[in-house]
Amino acid sequence: MTRLKNSKALVVLSGGQDSTTCLFWALDRFSAGNVSSVTFDYGQRHRVELECAREVAESAGVENVILPIDTLAALGGDALTDPAIDVDSELNSETGLPNTFVPGRNLIFLTFAAAFAYQRDIEHLVTGVAETDYSGYPDCRQATMQSLQKTLQLGMETGLTIHAPLMHLSKQQTVELAVALGALPTMALTHSCYNGERPPCGHCPACELRAKGFAAAGVVDPLVSLQ
Amino acid sequence: MTRLKNSKALVVLSGGQDSTTCLFWALDRFSAGNVSSVTFDYGQRHRVELECAREVAESAGVENVILPIDTLAALGGDALTDPAIDVDSELNSETGLPNTFVPGRNLIFLTFAAAFAYQRDIEHLVTGVAETDYSGYPDCRQATMQSLQKTLQLGMETGLTIHAPLMHLSKQQTVELAVALGALPTMALTHSCYNGERPPCGHCPACELRAKGFAAAGVVDPLVSLQ
Repeated sequence: MTRLKNSKALVVLSGGQDSTTCLFWALDRFSAGNVSSVTFDYGQRHRVELECAREVAESAGVENVILPIDTLAALGGDALTDPAIDVDSELNSETGLPNTFVPGRNLIFLTFAAAFAYQRDIEHLVTGVAETDYSGYPDCRQATMQSLQKTLQLGMETGLTIHAPLMHLSKQQTVELAVALGALPTMALTHSCYNGERPPCGHCPACELRAKGFAAAGVVDPLVSLQ
Repeated sequence: MTRLKNSKALVVLSGGQDSTTCLFWALDRFSAGNVSSVTFDYGQRHRVELECAREVAESAGVENVILPIDTLAALGGDALTDPAIDVDSELNSETGLPNTFVPGRNLIFLTFAAAFAYQRDIEHLVTGVAETDYSGYPDCRQATMQSLQKTLQLGMETGLTIHAPLMHLSKQQTVELAVALGALPTMALTHSCYNGERPPCGHCPACELRAKGFAAAGVVDPLVSLQ
């Protein structure tokens, strides 16, 4: 633990529930002054996330840098960046993936985060990806993260470690972890709604998943109780 | 070979000597109609490369898509994207890397290329990276490419293969390969100069390396002979 207290960590902060929980996880394990956060502006439909990330980081006293990625929108063809495509909970019949899937999105985020970390001598990346995510994104799985960590270590000659503290947690357990870490009040600043609404729409897959997690943990979501 | 003839390949085309050789390598192994190319506009100092890539692809009858990446310039701090930093052949005393190094640049390029390939059902990526590159970029090495291939396969659930036909070739051997593949005339359309000059400056590390390769192969560089 002492070693981690002297090391620096970079949290990939989306402004959502999971990455905010990870920010508090990092603050629990590293010195507060050694934790910073990066948020990607990739033309996401729910751009309110960027403001949420800024507010969450500010509330936690952590630096937040927003990096642009215009490539995902140029690649196009996914519901989260293309306003012409409706978000729904249906899976693509060919791939079995939801139509919010951007191929390799988390690989891109973490590789850019690693480059940013390299420049600042940061050796720990923290990400909110989870295998238990209802969507089953292949770029969120443990095996993918392990392989990516090795690729980044080889490709940048660093001792970079990727931490994914939510990897095997259910949504209920993630809410319980947030409570244990003192992150619950900050959840009022976060954003999950796939439709980019604030207050949240309440009926998109992300809103339903979030509500189920809080209900299972027996905790009132401060974001919803604000309404 | 029959299998490859029926498969599709995407060449990461920078407009330089190496990736142009790789384009001809791909045309030799895949059906011409199954080869396409992608070029990244990442705010490089030598933006003439983009025009060279377009001309090379057009000359070879291959589609060329230019994808923007604004993130590398936002990360900043390297000589290829930051006009405030001089290009020179000195190595950074701390990292042993040249000051043209963008951490993980090839990981980014290939991950975006893989996302693009995913969308078009392309299962073969071709890149001009080489271990024998004078710069010793860690993101150009065989071990890195093998690990990245596994990461992309896991993260996108594809059977993607990364081909790096120049991996173990010297610059002399790369010129000899270009000659054998009939790519020599097209070399007049390529660009290598780190200073972005056309005709090339002749004295930057990239120009010197290119000249050495052609001299060792006993071949006249059609780009230089144009002057």
